[in-house]
Amino acid sequence: MTVVRPSGRAPDQLRPVRIERGYTRHAEGSVLVSFGDTRVLCTASVENKVPPFLRGKGEGWVTAEYGMLPRATHTRGEREAAKGKQGGRTLEIQRLIGRALRACVDRSALGERTITLDCDVLQADGGTRTAAITGAYVALVDAVRWLLARREIARDPVFGAVAAVSVGLYRGVPVLDLDYAEDSDCDTDMNVVMNDGGAFIELQGTAEGHAFRRDELDALLALAEHGIGQLLDLQRRALAG
Amino acid sequence: MTVVRPSGRAPDQLRPVRIERGYTRHAEGSVLVSFGDTRVLCTASVENKVPPFLRGKGEGWVTAEYGMLPRATHTRGEREAAKGKQGGRTLEIQRLIGRALRACVDRSALGERTITLDCDVLQADGGTRTAAITGAYVALVDAVRWLLARREIARDPVFGAVAAVSVGLYRGVPVLDLDYAEDSDCDTDMNVVMNDGGAFIELQGTAEGHAFRRDELDALLALAEHGIGQLLDLQRRALAG
Amino acid sequence: MTVVRPSGRAPDQLRPVRIERGYTRHAEGSVLVSFGDTRVLCTASVENKVPPFLRGKGEGWVTAEYGMLPRATHTRGEREAAKGKQGGRTLEIQRLIGRALRACVDRSALGERTITLDCDVLQADGGTRTAAITGAYVALVDAVRWLLARREIARDPVFGAVAAVSVGLYRGVPVLDLDYAEDSDCDTDMNVVMNDGGAFIELQGTAEGHAFRRDELDALLALAEHGIGQLLDLQRRALAG
Amino acid sequence: MTVVRPSGRAPDQLRPVRIERGYTRHAEGSVLVSFGDTRVLCTASVENKVPPFLRGKGEGWVTAEYGMLPRATHTRGEREAAKGKQGGRTLEIQRLIGRALRACVDRSALGERTITLDCDVLQADGGTRTAAITGAYVALVDAVRWLLARREIARDPVFGAVAAVSVGLYRGVPVLDLDYAEDSDCDTDMNVVMNDGGAFIELQGTAEGHAFRRDELDALLALAEHGIGQLLDLQRRALAG
Amino acid sequence: MTVVRPSGRAPDQLRPVRIERGYTRHAEGSVLVSFGDTRVLCTASVENKVPPFLRGKGEGWVTAEYGMLPRATHTRGEREAAKGKQGGRTLEIQRLIGRALRACVDRSALGERTITLDCDVLQADGGTRTAAITGAYVALVDAVRWLLARREIARDPVFGAVAAVSVGLYRGVPVLDLDYAEDSDCDTDMNVVMNDGGAFIELQGTAEGHAFRRDELDALLALAEHGIGQLLDLQRRALAG
Amino acid sequence: MTVVRPSGRAPDQLRPVRIERGYTRHAEGSVLVSFGDTRVLCTASVENKVPPFLRGKGEGWVTAEYGMLPRATHTRGEREAAKGKQGGRTLEIQRLIGRALRACVDRSALGERTITLDCDVLQADGGTRTAAITGAYVALVDAVRWLLARREIARDPVFGAVAAVSVGLYRGVPVLDLDYAEDSDCDTDMNVVMNDGGAFIELQGTAEGHAFRRDELDALLALAEHGIGQLLDLQRRALAG
Repeated sequence: MTVVRPSGRAPDQLRPVRIERGYTRHAEGSVLVSFGDTRVLCTASVENKVPPFLRGKGEGWVTAEYGMLPRATHTRGEREAAKGKQGGRTLEIQRLIGRALRACVDRSALGERTITLDCDVLQADGGTRTAAITGAYVALVDAVRWLLARREIARDPVFGAVAAVSVGLYRGVPVLDLDYAEDSDCDTDMNVVMNDGGAFIELQGTAEGHAFRRDELDALLALAEHGIGQLLDLQRRALAG
Repeated sequence: MTVVRPSGRAPDQLRPVRIERGYTRHAEGSVLVSFGDTRVLCTASVENKVPPFLRGKGEGWVTAEYGMLPRATHTRGEREAAKGKQGGRTLEIQRLIGRALRACVDRSALGERTITLDCDVLQADGGTRTAAITGAYVALVDAVRWLLARREIARDPVFGAVAAVSVGLYRGVPVLDLDYAEDSDCDTDMNVVMNDGGAFIELQGTAEGHAFRRDELDALLALAEHGIGQLLDLQRRALAG
Repeated sequence: MTVVRPSGRAPDQLRPVRIERGYTRHAEGSVLVSFGDTRVLCTASVENKVPPFLRGKGEGWVTAEYGMLPRATHTRGEREAAKGKQGGRTLEIQRLIGRALRACVDRSALGERTITLDCDVLQADGGTRTAAITGAYVALVDAVRWLLARREIARDPVFGAVAAVSVGLYRGVPVLDLDYAEDSDCDTDMNVVMNDGGAFIELQGTAEGHAFRRDELDALLALAEHGIGQLLDLQRRALAG
Repeated sequence: MTVVRPSGRAPDQLRPVRIERGYTRHAEGSVLVSFGDTRVLCTASVENKVPPFLRGKGEGWVTAEYGMLPRATHTRGEREAAKGKQGGRTLEIQRLIGRALRACVDRSALGERTITLDCDVLQADGGTRTAAITGAYVALVDAVRWLLARREIARDPVFGAVAAVSVGLYRGVPVLDLDYAEDSDCDTDMNVVMNDGGAFIELQGTAEGHAFRRDELDALLALAEHGIGQLLDLQRRALAG
Repeated sequence: MTVVRPSGRAPDQLRPVRIERGYTRHAEGSVLVSFGDTRVLCTASVENKVPPFLRGKGEGWVTAEYGMLPRATHTRGEREAAKGKQGGRTLEIQRLIGRALRACVDRSALGERTITLDCDVLQADGGTRTAAITGAYVALVDAVRWLLARREIARDPVFGAVAAVSVGLYRGVPVLDLDYAEDSDCDTDMNVVMNDGGAFIELQGTAEGHAFRRDELDALLALAEHGIGQLLDLQRRALAG
Repeated sequence: MTVVRPSGRAPDQLRPVRIERGYTRHAEGSVLVSFGDTRVLCTASVENKVPPFLRGKGEGWVTAEYGMLPRATHTRGEREAAKGKQGGRTLEIQRLIGRALRACVDRSALGERTITLDCDVLQADGGTRTAAITGAYVALVDAVRWLLARREIARDPVFGAVAAVSVGLYRGVPVLDLDYAEDSDCDTDMNVVMNDGGAFIELQGTAEGHAFRRDELDALLALAEHGIGQLLDLQRRALAG
C-alpha cells in the first residue's frame, strides 16, 4: 500500500534535521534544532539550587519549560504570559521533555544544581516536542561539558543519549516524522522517546478517529526506531563538531 | 521469574473492581468506581451548549475534568481551587480522559450538546486515571440513555466501549493494575486505553529509571489487553443491571 | 398558623441525619455526614506545622476548607480550580466552619500542629454549611483521638461539642433545617452554631425580602436550639459507636 | 456591673458620627461617613446594564464592593490589587453590604440599571462594615434622587432606610459601636443591620473565646436597636440637609 | 499665538494646588494633595524590612504603589483587586513614582528600612501621577522626620526636593498642568520630574497624533521648569507649616 | 572630556546593526533585528478584528507585545507565562512599542484590522526596546505590503518611518546606543523615538543617581538624532532589498 505524503517524502524519511550549537551566547548550552520548518531554540541553564523537595540531599535536578512564540504558527496564538497561565498542552509537553532528559542523567553526579532546558518554538510545523527533546539533549551535554571544564563536577552525569520522533498513520500508512500538514490529516499519532541502547523512555500514542490495531502499533514502533537511530547519529556528529 | 507483589496479587490479577451506578442524584450519569482502595466519583452532566469552536456546526462535545480531594491521599495535598490553578498533572489527566471518551462517541449524533465527565477522586491508591476512564464510560452511557429516554436525541451516539488499566514492571516483572505501593517502587509504567474491538486508543508509557526493551513492552501490552477485557465485561454487567 | 413544607416535615423536624465515621482511610478523621440528601465528606488532617503568625508560640491551629463537586447541584457549577479562584460564598463558608470549630478547641493543648477540616459536598440539597460543621466536629474528635492514642499530645484539646443547623421563615412560619426547595422559597434564613452548654458560637441571619421582627427571631432561635440538641445527641452516639 | 471602655464612652454610647454628602464630584452619590476615627468613602455609581442573570427581565441590581487603602490601618496591609485577589474578609463584607442595601430597594422600579456602592476605607478604627452600610445608604438615596431628577425612573425604588452598628461583650459588659481597641479585646461581637421599621435585615454574631448565652444576646440586641435608631436619625438629617 | 484653555487658565498657569499634611493618622506621613479637582491621598509607611535583593546590605528602599478608586473618574472603572491584576498603566505610574522619589534619598542613611508611598486617587481630573509625586515627596519627608524624632536614624536621608508637573501642546500652544478636558484634546503631553537644583529626574513625552519638533520641546521644558518652581515652593511652605 | 566605553566604541557610534527580513515564514512580516549582541525577533500579524472599543468604527488598530526568552539574559529569568503574569517592565515596554508604531499609521486606511507586533528578545545586551521599535517598523511595513499586494487595502496606511535609540551619560559623557555593560554603569539614560521628519514621538529619560542638567539633555538629544538618522537609513536599505 502506498500513499503520497504532502511533503513528498518516503514513508520512512525524516525531514532535513539541523542542530546548531552555540546559537545564543549567555546560556551554558544553546542549540537551535530544526526538523524541516520546525525550529526550536533549546537553552540549558545551570543554577546552584534545587527545588525544595531535593534540598540537602546532595542530588541535582533536570527540568524543562516549553513555550511557543505567538506567531510561530500559521495563525497567531495568544501569548501565555498575557493570558496569565500556561495551557494544558504546554504543561504536558514540558513535563514530557523533563522526564525524557532525566532518563539519561545520574542526578547524584550533578550535585545540588538544577539544569533547566528552555525549549522555545520560533517556528512550528509539526513535531515541536520531539524536536525539542532531540535538541535539548545536545544543549544539556554542552552545559555538562561547561561544568566539567570548570571542574564544578567531577564526573559526567549524562549516560547514553536520548532522542525523539513522531510517527503516525497517514491515510492508513505508517509514516515517520509528521509535519503539520500530515499531522492535521492523521488518524493516529505517536511520540516516541528512545535511548541509544534501543530502549523506550516514553511512548505516547493517541488515536483520533481510528483506534490502532496491534500490527499497526508494531509498524509504527519499527519506524520510530529507524528514525531515532538517525537522530542519535546527528546528535553525535553535532557534539563532535 | 517470580515476584511477590505488595498486594499479594498474581502478576496478571486486577484489584477488586466495583462500579456503582446512580451514586448521586442530580447528574444525568453518576458512577462510583473502585479499583481496590482507589475510589473515583464520575458524573456525566448534559448541557445544551458547546464550546465556541463548535458553535453552529450541529455537533456535540465530550470533555472531562479531574480533581482530587485534598485528603484523598496519604498526606494532604493543597486544594487546587485555593492555589488558584490546576497543576500540570491534573490538566494532563483530564485531557486524557476527554480524548479517551470522545473516541467512542459519534458527536454528530449528539447535537449541540456538551457532556462533561467530572472525575473526582475520593480516595487514591494508584491508578486513578484508569479507574476514572473506566467509570466515566458508564456514566456517559447513563447520560446518553437519559437523553434517549427523553427523546432529545434520535440515535445512540456511543459506539463500542472504552476501558483503561495500568501496567508496569515491578522488580523486572510485568504486573497488571498497579496500586500505590507498587507504583512507587516501579521502574516503568504504562497506562493503556482500549476499546472493545481490541484496538488501542491511548498508550502512555514512561520509564523512570529503567528504559524498557521491546520484549518488555510486548509483555506489558499483553497484560493490559487481558485486564481491559475483564473491565469491559464488568462495565457491560453494570450497565445491564 | 400552619404551613405544609415541601418536604412534608413538621416545622420543628430535622431531616434524617446520618454520621458515618471512617468513610475514607487516609485521613486521621473521615466522616460522611448526611442531612437528608445533603451529603458532605469531612476529613480532618493533622500536620506538624502552623501558619506563620503562630510559629514558635507553642500553640496549634484549626482551620477549614470547603468545596462543592461541580455536579453536587441541580445544574453543573464551574469547578473553582478551573476558574482559578474560590468564590466569595466558598470563602465565607470555610471561614465560618473554621471559627466554629476553633470555639471548642484549646489550641495550647494541641502543640504546634494544624488540623485542617476539608468539607467537600458530594451532593447538595440545602444546609451544606451546617451539615459540614456538624460532621467536621466528629472528624475533629477522631483526629484528636488518633493523636492521643499515639501519645503525640498529652491531654484532649477538645472541650464540649459544636453543632449547627439552619432555621428560616417559610411562608411566615418558622421551620427547622431547610432543604433546597424550602430555602429557595424562604424570606429569611439563619444559620446557628451552638455548643453543648446551650450557648451561641455563631449566628448568621439574613432577610431576603422580609426583614424579621424580634418575635420571629425569638421563635427561630428556639427552633435552632431544639434541633441542635438532637444533633449533639447524634454526634455523641456516633462517637460512642 | 460596670467597665471602663478604652474610649471612655458609656456602654450605650456611639462614637461621634459624621455623614458628608457630595464628598467627590463624579459619582451620582458620594458620601464620606465617619464613626469616630473610622472613615469610609461610599460612592454610588449608576450604570445602564445589569449582570447576565438579570438581562431582559426589566429589573435592576444593587451591589457593593469594599476596599481598604493599604495604610488605612495601624500597620500597612498588602494591596489586594497587587496580591492579585480579594481576600475572604473583603468578599464577605462586600456581600454583606450588597445584601443589606438590596433589602430596601424595589428592584423592579429601578429598570435595567445597576447601582454599585463602592465602600473604600480611608482610615480604619473598627466597625468599617457597619459604617460602610450606614453611609452607603445615603449615597444610594442620592443616586436615586439623581435618577428621579433626570426622570430616568418614574418612582422611588428605595423604601424605608437601613443602618448598621456593631455590639459586643467587652469584659463581660455589652457595649455599643466597638472601636479597634475594644474590638481587639472583645470576646464576642455582633454586627446588626436593621431597617427603620425596627426589623432585622442581617445579624452576624461571632464568639471568639466566650460563647454567648441567650440573655447576653438579648442585651446586645437591645443595644443595637438603640444605636441604630440614632443612626437612622442622623441619616435622615443628612439627607434633609 | 493664543488659545483659550477649557479651564480658562493662562497657558503658564497651574491649577490651585493644596497640600494637606496629616490627612489620616496611622501612616508615618499622610498627605492629601490637590491639583484642582485631582485629589490624591499619599501615605508614607515605614517598615523594618527590605526586599530580598537588598537584605544584609545595610541599605534601605523607597517604593511606591498607585491606585485609583473605582469612581474617582467620570465613569466607573473596574476595581483592580476584583480583576485580579494591576493594569499596565498602574504599574507604569507606580514605577515612575518610586524612581522619582528614590532620586532624592540617600538609601544608606535609611538603614534596612522600606518606605512605601501609597498614592491613591480619590478624585481624578488629569495629572494624577504628577500630583502623586509632588504629594508623596511631602509624605516622605514627614516619615523621615518621624524616624529622626524617634532617633531611629541618625541623619536625614532626604537631599533636595522633587516635584512634577505635566505640560502639553493644546491646539498647538504649550500649556502647563493639563486637566482632564485639556488632556483629552491634546496632541502631545509630557510629564516632567525635576529637583530643586533645576535638574531633570524623569522626562516622559508622548506624541499622540502630532510628533513634536525640537522648538516645541524647548517651550514645553521651559513651562515645566516654571511650574515646578512654584510646586517646590508650595512643598516648602507646607513642610514649614 | 573623553571616556573609554567598555565596548571601545566612540561616544557617537552605534553598535553594528542588522535587519533580516523574512526570518520566520508564517507571519505577514518577520524581522530579526540585531543591535550588536541584542537580537529581537519582531513579527507582524494581521488579523481581521479590532478591540471592542473600535468595533464598527471602520478603523484599524496597531498594538505590540514584548517578551524575553528566559535565558536571553546573563542569568536565567523566570518565565512570565509560568509566573502567571507579565511584569511591570514588560507592560511598560510593550505599551511604548505600540504607541511608537501607531504614530506612523493612518488607522482609517487600515480598515477593521489589527496588526500585532510581537517583539521577542532571543538575546539581550542592552537596548532591547529601541531595537524592538526599529525592527518592528520594518515588520509592519512588510505586513502592510502583504495587504496591499493582496489588494485587501487600497492605500498605504504607513506614513513616514519610526526608529529608536538609547542615549545616556556614561561617566559624565554623553554616549549613543548603550550596551548592557554601559547601561549598568550609567547614571542617566534616555530612550528616544523619532520619525523621519526629525520630530520626537517618545522621549523617556530617567536619572538614576545623577539628575541631568539642561545642557546634558541637549547633548543627549543631539546624539539621539544622529543615531536615529543612521537607523532610518538602515531601515530604508533593508526595505529596498
